Amino acid sequence: MESTEKIEAFLEPESVAIIGASRETGEGGFNIYQNIVESGYEKTVYPVNPKANEILGEKAYPSIKDIPVDVDLAVVSTPREVVVDLVKECAEENVKGVIVITQGFSESDERGKILEKELVEVAEKSGTRILGPNTLGVQNSYLSFSTSFFPYEDVDWDSIEGWRSVSIISQTGLFTGGFPDFRFGKAVDIGNGCDINHVDFLEYFKQDPETKQIFLHIEGLDNGKKFMKIAKDIVDKKPIFALKSGRSKAGADMAASHTGSMSGQDQIYNGIFKQLGIVRIYEIDELKIFARGFSKLPNMTGNKIGVLTDAGAAGVMSADWIEEFGLELAELSKETIEKIESPAPDWMKVENPVDIWPIMMLGKGEMHEVFHTALREMLGDDSISALMLAFPSYEKFRVSGGPLCKCVSSLKSLTSKFEKPVAVWLHNDGEKSKLRRELMTGKNLAVFDNLRNAAKTLAVLEGRKFNIG
Amino acid sequence: MESTEKIEAFLEPESVAIIGASRETGEGGFNIYQNIVESGYEKTVYPVNPKANEILGEKAYPSIKDIPVDVDLAVVSTPREVVVDLVKECAEENVKGVIVITQGFSESDERGKILEKELVEVAEKSGTRILGPNTLGVQNSYLSFSTSFFPYEDVDWDSIEGWRSVSIISQTGLFTGGFPDFRFGKAVDIGNGCDINHVDFLEYFKQDPETKQIFLHIEGLDNGKKFMKIAKDIVDKKPIFALKSGRSKAGADMAASHTGSMSGQDQIYNGIFKQLGIVRIYEIDELKIFARGFSKLPNMTGNKIGVLTDAGAAGVMSADWIEEFGLELAELSKETIEKIESPAPDWMKVENPVDIWPIMMLGKGEMHEVFHTALREMLGDDSISALMLAFPSYEKFRVSGGPLCKCVSSLKSLTSKFEKPVAVWLHNDGEKSKLRRELMTGKNLAVFDNLRNAAKTLAVLEGRKFNIG
Repeated sequence: MESTEKIEAFLEPESVAIIGASRETGEGGFNIYQNIVESGYEKTVYPVNPKANEILGEKAYPSIKDIPVDVDLAVVSTPREVVVDLVKECAEENVKGVIVITQGFSESDERGKILEKELVEVAEKSGTRILGPNTLGVQNSYLSFSTSFFPYEDVDWDSIEGWRSVSIISQTGLFTGGFPDFRFGKAVDIGNGCDINHVDFLEYFKQDPETKQIFLHIEGLDNGKKFMKIAKDIVDKKPIFALKSGRSKAGADMAASHTGSMSGQDQIYNGIFKQLGIVRIYEIDELKIFARGFSKLPNMTGNKIGVLTDAGAAGVMSADWIEEFGLELAELSKETIEKIESPAPDWMKVENPVDIWPIMMLGKGEMHEVFHTALREMLGDDSISALMLAFPSYEKFRVSGGPLCKCVSSLKSLTSKFEKPVAVWLHNDGEKSKLRRELMTGKNLAVFDNLRNAAKTLAVLEGRKFNIG
Repeated sequence: MESTEKIEAFLEPESVAIIGASRETGEGGFNIYQNIVESGYEKTVYPVNPKANEILGEKAYPSIKDIPVDVDLAVVSTPREVVVDLVKECAEENVKGVIVITQGFSESDERGKILEKELVEVAEKSGTRILGPNTLGVQNSYLSFSTSFFPYEDVDWDSIEGWRSVSIISQTGLFTGGFPDFRFGKAVDIGNGCDINHVDFLEYFKQDPETKQIFLHIEGLDNGKKFMKIAKDIVDKKPIFALKSGRSKAGADMAASHTGSMSGQDQIYNGIFKQLGIVRIYEIDELKIFARGFSKLPNMTGNKIGVLTDAGAAGVMSADWIEEFGLELAELSKETIEKIESPAPDWMKVENPVDIWPIMMLGKGEMHEVFHTALREMLGDDSISALMLAFPSYEKFRVSGGPLCKCVSSLKSLTSKFEKPVAVWLHNDGEKSKLRRELMTGKNLAVFDNLRNAAKTLAVLEGRKFNIG
């Protein structure tokens, strides 16, 4: 049996046992079994609890040994003292993978360290792979499958093309918890990483056709050489982004007590990432921005950026970031300039960045026509590799009858016709409006919180592999 | 008449004339007169339009000369060719200030440059001060007064203590537009800055008791010495933050065509800001983060930060940022540790950063009690100068009956009892939830998009005056 086949069992199991399935259900029950049953996951899931005959109306089994089918994946969530014996039973039943949710192992006291060592021995002797301990486990959005003790909430994202292409390997449950805020296609929390670690899942995601971009959250790695080898193999086919924390002394100490990780010196990681072409990121919101950007935007050829805005100040700032991230402002073709300028007041000269506000206010024709023409011409201009767009979010002007209401449909319809990345910043969008959600359903465009991240994403898309602070 | 008295007329006029008041009303009318009338501004506003007898049921005047009272402030929004004559009329009537909304001056062609020079001559000769041209004018939230051609929308912020303490002087309408996303107490768009510039309003905000923090958006300054002198006088009493754009060659060129600004070399600005103790910021969302943080958080004494989180990974990242921004992790008192540890599982050792999740999940007592105790003890611990709090946003656990629902009221009630800054990061809060809005009504706490900005804000609050990239 190959290594990735067992790893596959974690994300695409044919049969799952929940060992320590709780009888307490409902909100606040943190009931993994209930969460899976109610999540829409279609395979049979077997609750194991020696003290219960049935849970949520389904037969409960006293032990994994009593389940009448071969179990691919077991999820163990019990007091720590019984974990090792339960995992041994799983190994005896040839379970491919075991997720140990339980806390209190190497991240805690001496007893915990000993117990974790025993877990490792079980894995080594049996070939059964162990994820965790101290993990929320896995999540596979293709199957609505999550082992989190938080309920897997539905998200209304199916209309957002491509969002599932992003997978993550992390050392926290913040990405695999099942929260609807941001979801990855496939997500793994390696927890303490006693057996399975970043490298195992890198190997899996390398050959997984559904994974197009790989994100890593790293507190520590203890097999640097293997990591470097596999990452090097991947990075030209699938971009890798790494959020490495534990940079500070205090952060590293905390990482040690949180997941038992040795963080190592930050400069070493920096060097490795740079050498491998891994994009380093520093914050969770940044991680989400890149994940969304890369899952939404098409490939980019060239480094010439067109900027379209209704606010001159945003044009100035866009130009700053474009230069800072090594991109260039595109020189618009004569035809593009003529077409955009045609309804403009006489005194106005169009150049990139294009501030169309004076034309919208003072020019000939309707506001949305001015916008439509400018966007269409810039998307069609071969001298432009990608577009940055600063667009107003304020609702009064976008609702039916408002002067900008037709701009939104222009935007969505035009971006679907040109295979060019469009990075949008919605100004005055403090509430992360419905407009943002609506735009994210469009093709070839992504919405950012600021112009810096819009430009950064384009720079990385263009192939720049710098570390980003 | 003193200089600041005339400047005061822009933000607190006793009487306002709108010259070029449009007869076109309703959505998309961009009608400044209508916006003011409907905004809740209580003083009388006089529409001037030689082609209209009345506008919105009120008498319209053919000229400023026909208005029966002394006008403090005139707002001119007409085609550019008639602007100079209209401003001359205002000067003849001893109007204190004129806002020229009209575009097409020094930011455009040669004719525009000549017209702007003529405006400057009117100001110099008459003493009437001119704001603009090419501006959205001013906004004073205390009076619901805005000269924007975008409607001034109501915001439900009155319950958010102190938000009005932040004033801004900018070169864009993005902050004075009247949009409800983010509002400053007092906001000015100097536009092309032909007469009035950053320095004039710095002098005004210096002595304005309602202004506690000053933000600047700068594309260019052409009176550096005066700026430095006045800023130096202010910065120890009222912190100054500057978003300086036009850093790149292209950005500077764009700034020249946008507001006619000469941006100058970026290093020079960096040096000046550093010397003066002005905090430099680089993005609009960052500007809003600091504005909100500073208007909400109390003074901070000491640099020792306590971190409370339900996610170990967030603790690690907090520790990283605390070190990066020159702060230190507080060493908790023995009593604090004992009280937090008391319901914890035996194997768990509490230290700062405090990850209370294992106690919430496995400890004695209810989740919200664990949270309440930890927060109370840390806020009361004298070794802690300020708190960073990573708190879950996911709704299922906060709604009535959910295990975290009582945590929110604990948070709001406890932070109001301790005069200590609490910088909150809500994880899994992609939608900028109702929770965020609710927490922002609390005392001594502010919500941030990430841990970096939470730590940054505390560092600046503590008195660090570094440039932040």
